[in-house]
Amino acid sequence: MALRGTDGGRSGGGSRADEQRQRILAGAVSLFSRSGYRAVSMNDVAASVGLSKPTLYHYVRTKEDLLVAVYEEVLDESLRSARRIVAEAPSTREAVRRLIVERVRYTCEHRDLLTICFHEESALPAELAEPILERRREFERVVRDAVEAHLAATGRTLPMSVGTYVSTCLGAANWTYKWFDPSGPRTATELGDDVATVLLGLLDGG
Amino acid sequence: MALRGTDGGRSGGGSRADEQRQRILAGAVSLFSRSGYRAVSMNDVAASVGLSKPTLYHYVRTKEDLLVAVYEEVLDESLRSARRIVAEAPSTREAVRRLIVERVRYTCEHRDLLTICFHEESALPAELAEPILERRREFERVVRDAVEAHLAATGRTLPMSVGTYVSTCLGAANWTYKWFDPSGPRTATELGDDVATVLLGLLDGG
Repeated sequence: MALRGTDGGRSGGGSRADEQRQRILAGAVSLFSRSGYRAVSMNDVAASVGLSKPTLYHYVRTKEDLLVAVYEEVLDESLRSARRIVAEAPSTREAVRRLIVERVRYTCEHRDLLTICFHEESALPAELAEPILERRREFERVVRDAVEAHLAATGRTLPMSVGTYVSTCLGAANWTYKWFDPSGPRTATELGDDVATVLLGLLDGG
Repeated sequence: MALRGTDGGRSGGGSRADEQRQRILAGAVSLFSRSGYRAVSMNDVAASVGLSKPTLYHYVRTKEDLLVAVYEEVLDESLRSARRIVAEAPSTREAVRRLIVERVRYTCEHRDLLTICFHEESALPAELAEPILERRREFERVVRDAVEAHLAATGRTLPMSVGTYVSTCLGAANWTYKWFDPSGPRTATELGDDVATVLLGLLDGG
């Protein structure tokens, strides 16, 4: 996870300081997703990881930095894996299918992180929100381009805009954060297969 | 909206007290959806509707009562309209289609209310949450029964459980609270038509 310390990262990668930041971020993720970002104080974060407040502030400047780190983690990983999927898929249909499956898998396996991303957008100050929103639009463009490449390759058309189709697909995938049951009979990837089958029905149909 | 006053409702329906409670609830909905339920105090609610705190407490016992009233409003309306749709639809397919369209329309036209419902479930104390969750399961059963009636009527089967299909559909519909653009070219109902077309692709396909 990306979380620059108050020393501007001078302490280097893989250091004890980095480990400490990871631990702080994991504690914050757990608190934010359970109680809501706004209701959690830096005191709560410090207590949850067993640090004094001055020591916490040595690693993290503000609560907002923790929130931004959550968004960066999720969006970096989403974008990286989406690009890899498109590059490696053996067909345009399989690219679209795998993008949906992967979106469900990642969402279900990181529900704490995604709950924060989905619920706390309005807590981001405008100057921090813009680069994050731009990265999210970039992710959506990768999915959109994959759908358009499939339509072009097959000569099919959709009875709605590609944007609406993609938002419907991503919405169905995102919403699994509410109903995936880790103790249920289906793994996150199997659930992703099911969700993708529903959403590809229109792409495949007559 | 259902919101019982501290007089146990003795002041009767349609009274000035009821109007006052409606006004308080509307103010609370606006605040909760913007800032998150947990971050809003009864002081904030009182200020937003121009009442003193003692006067506010004359109408509303606790902040939790306001949150419960939001859930009751949304779930009562959802259940009522879902049952009406199933009773009036000219075919089993049209029942399923209209349930999705209506879900999107209602969500897009009441985004403040739905944002609260989707984000604040964990803020409900257990004894208040259970009847609300039961009513939500009842709504989901209506949709599920409609899908099963359609499968029975047509002899079709789904390659996943009906529960997974229904959760995928409701997830895609619910997520429109994030991306519907009231100033865009499509009305909420037109967007509902599009979303339903995506989701029925599998039901209609070979």
